[in-house]
Amino acid sequence: MTLDNSSAPCDFVLFGTKGDLARRKLLPSLYQLEKAELMHAETTILGVARDDISLQEYVALVKENIEQFSGETLCTETWERFSAKLDYVCVDMKNAESYSVFAEHVDVSRTMVCYFATPPSIFGDICRGLKAANVIDKSMRVVLEKPIGHDLASSKVINDQVAEFFDESQIYRIDHYLGKETVLNLIALRFANSIFATNWDHNSIDHVQISVAESVGIEGRWGYFDTAGQMRDMVQNHLLQILTLIAMEPPTTLDADSIRGEKLKVLKALRPINSTNINQKSVRGQYIGGFVKGKEVPGYLDEPDANPRSETETFVALNVDIDNWRWAGVPFYLRTGKRLPNKTSEVVIYFKRQPHNLFEDSFAQLPPNKLTIRLQPDEGVEVTVMNKVPGLTGTSGMDLQKSRLNLSFSEAFQDDRIADAYEKLLLEVMLGNQALFVSRDEVEYAWKWVDGIIEAWKHTNEPPEPYQAGTWGPVASIALLARENRAWYESRIGRK
Amino acid sequence: MTLDNSSAPCDFVLFGTKGDLARRKLLPSLYQLEKAELMHAETTILGVARDDISLQEYVALVKENIEQFSGETLCTETWERFSAKLDYVCVDMKNAESYSVFAEHVDVSRTMVCYFATPPSIFGDICRGLKAANVIDKSMRVVLEKPIGHDLASSKVINDQVAEFFDESQIYRIDHYLGKETVLNLIALRFANSIFATNWDHNSIDHVQISVAESVGIEGRWGYFDTAGQMRDMVQNHLLQILTLIAMEPPTTLDADSIRGEKLKVLKALRPINSTNINQKSVRGQYIGGFVKGKEVPGYLDEPDANPRSETETFVALNVDIDNWRWAGVPFYLRTGKRLPNKTSEVVIYFKRQPHNLFEDSFAQLPPNKLTIRLQPDEGVEVTVMNKVPGLTGTSGMDLQKSRLNLSFSEAFQDDRIADAYEKLLLEVMLGNQALFVSRDEVEYAWKWVDGIIEAWKHTNEPPEPYQAGTWGPVASIALLARENRAWYESRIGRK
Repeated sequence: MTLDNSSAPCDFVLFGTKGDLARRKLLPSLYQLEKAELMHAETTILGVARDDISLQEYVALVKENIEQFSGETLCTETWERFSAKLDYVCVDMKNAESYSVFAEHVDVSRTMVCYFATPPSIFGDICRGLKAANVIDKSMRVVLEKPIGHDLASSKVINDQVAEFFDESQIYRIDHYLGKETVLNLIALRFANSIFATNWDHNSIDHVQISVAESVGIEGRWGYFDTAGQMRDMVQNHLLQILTLIAMEPPTTLDADSIRGEKLKVLKALRPINSTNINQKSVRGQYIGGFVKGKEVPGYLDEPDANPRSETETFVALNVDIDNWRWAGVPFYLRTGKRLPNKTSEVVIYFKRQPHNLFEDSFAQLPPNKLTIRLQPDEGVEVTVMNKVPGLTGTSGMDLQKSRLNLSFSEAFQDDRIADAYEKLLLEVMLGNQALFVSRDEVEYAWKWVDGIIEAWKHTNEPPEPYQAGTWGPVASIALLARENRAWYESRIGRK
Repeated sequence: MTLDNSSAPCDFVLFGTKGDLARRKLLPSLYQLEKAELMHAETTILGVARDDISLQEYVALVKENIEQFSGETLCTETWERFSAKLDYVCVDMKNAESYSVFAEHVDVSRTMVCYFATPPSIFGDICRGLKAANVIDKSMRVVLEKPIGHDLASSKVINDQVAEFFDESQIYRIDHYLGKETVLNLIALRFANSIFATNWDHNSIDHVQISVAESVGIEGRWGYFDTAGQMRDMVQNHLLQILTLIAMEPPTTLDADSIRGEKLKVLKALRPINSTNINQKSVRGQYIGGFVKGKEVPGYLDEPDANPRSETETFVALNVDIDNWRWAGVPFYLRTGKRLPNKTSEVVIYFKRQPHNLFEDSFAQLPPNKLTIRLQPDEGVEVTVMNKVPGLTGTSGMDLQKSRLNLSFSEAFQDDRIADAYEKLLLEVMLGNQALFVSRDEVEYAWKWVDGIIEAWKHTNEPPEPYQAGTWGPVASIALLARENRAWYESRIGRK
């Protein structure tokens, strides 16, 4: 999506360098970019936090941090190069005056990339601080982490605060699903192969399933989660973003304008789910006590700090229609939940069945071709085809079997590590390519659609359906597809 | 293609049991069917030849024979079962009276399967002999080996001779290409997978290539070969049969009537190649001395017993149009020859290129998807797709690469042996299923089309184009495709 990986040098400023995201994902990813020699030699990485620590102390912290989360032994040579890039500045992020020290640490003649790995509530404060320090210019880029609000109104407030200081072309909104290897491969497969491209519409596709399952529960974040719920936490961003990439029209080019324009058109074409169709089109669930991987776990209302009367959903299943020419009559089924049996994210595209079955001796009903895009745990893309059982034996001279073909990686690559999504996205920010980031319009149209569903749920006056922890959600979720003679894909993950 | 492998018992009569085909292929294949327990316990195998030998001597010969050609150590248990089935009768096949001994060796209450592994010139004699022995009935099946004539007129003579005694429904004409595992898998892939079925026409397919290359020369058969030539020896049967399976409309069922009816329609739709277009649509070649796999070999006219003025072709390349709705504008390129660099039979289906290239940073022109069906040496089916080069590196953020996916066999099977085509076909004869055999109409329409080309060559008064042994035929063969901006597939075989 970019012409050249040899980025110009920049000052990469990491607000919230001691936070969870920076420690687990961003610093290890920057280290991997250094290891792959994809960062310019003169790029600097400036950590920002409120602790008054020395650079030496900061470097030691970062080292510990990468050792803990990179999952590999530190490479001495890489670390030497990387640590030489590190700088640190102590700033009280809510206090504009405290940013004055900033100017000494950055080179205003270079591009500054500011990553706001902080709660969105202080995005505005950071902008004002940068302004006060007089380091803002047109070449600067800011990276915003989710959640961008918890509904359309609050997302507008956040986006407005940032827009006061930066152009939309300077703003990089992260959805890390867009940096995943298999998501990018989906784009390659779809647009570089005529055997898929010609089959990418209502003539050939029966339906699409997007599942993002978590086996964890609330993990001590009850208060935060309860104000959000699974719809805001997962559907509004990750699931809708995946949906748009699958459903969008072929863009003119792979640049940000084309891709984001096409994705936006999909969001605008989502059929509203409201009081008139909420029961046909949606299921919301809340887990009760049960067993996940053999371990007994409490219900959502029995978690520490829980409000026992909460009606927040921990599970969502949706039957989504896209009202445009390409997708008329093709449902997109979405589901996501906590305390499900496994942690898996999978997209399955079901092609239509053959109109006439020549092999009824072997299969009373021929299984359809399926394209499966697995985002986690083991990233991969595979296609299910039917072929002949080799040999002479079998109950028929032409027995068929299902075979799964790995479409994602060359054999040579299969043992290598797959880059984390954040590595890809950090690289793209440094290169100044917005194609894999979410536009303001996308955020807002996604909220608008999601707000409608949440609103409709409120009006039903019905609580979420209970489901036992360790199951695939309420039975209503199964019925959602069964009503249309379909069934959720049975993931092979965890059932070797 | 059949309902049940548990065939009824039959008397399998092998005329020409001491001939080359029987020794190399038929007896080893019958042995393999025994090993796989696919022959009925009470089936007998009656060898017929003119030598006055004892059953004991015959059994010893067959054993030697299978040890020599089966490519594996004899299994004692299988051999015991198999040898108990063997019987032998000495018959002078041209002398109807000598068939009188026959009745003692067969059980007329059972199905008799007569395999004519003899020159076609005595098919009529055998039929008359069987008639004289009074063993012919409606349940009997006869299997005919190629060549069925050397042109339309002579094929009619042979077919008429057999038709005097047998219904078309009793006649099984062998083309062993139809028994190949990968050819059967082609049918499965095409009709059991909507991702291929919806792409199987002029909208999605650019062109098709069928190559049958031999590295051998004439191997002491100069006299025989010179009266035939590569067109009669290979194109009329194998290449056209493969072409019909690729090009046919979906049959109603997989039974013989449906499949053979659809194949016939393709043969009828072949655009004639005649004096008006012979130079645009065909190339014929004749090898001169050269090197095959590093070994110096003589030219066709320098072979032992050669007539140095022969104009018989040892190489054919054709640009074939199928004048029907499905294939309008899609050329089928056929080539076959002797003394080419490798022994390979491959079908390559080239899908159309993507209409718009989103990945021009990676490929100035995106390679098309290809479906490759390899009949020999290593049977297999693979599809070439474009996917993303994994990882962050590369000259672009979205580098593409070609990947080849194996569509043919499950991983578990890859080390197993692949059944010989004759095993499949012998089994089908015993089961009484004609689907994989060639109908009289097919033979005759194929001859009619081929006769037209041979006739047109004669009228050109031009000799075949010379090509050096060990090359891919005359340069005119390359030009045949180059004129249409295409190129022959470069086989990977032999270039590891």
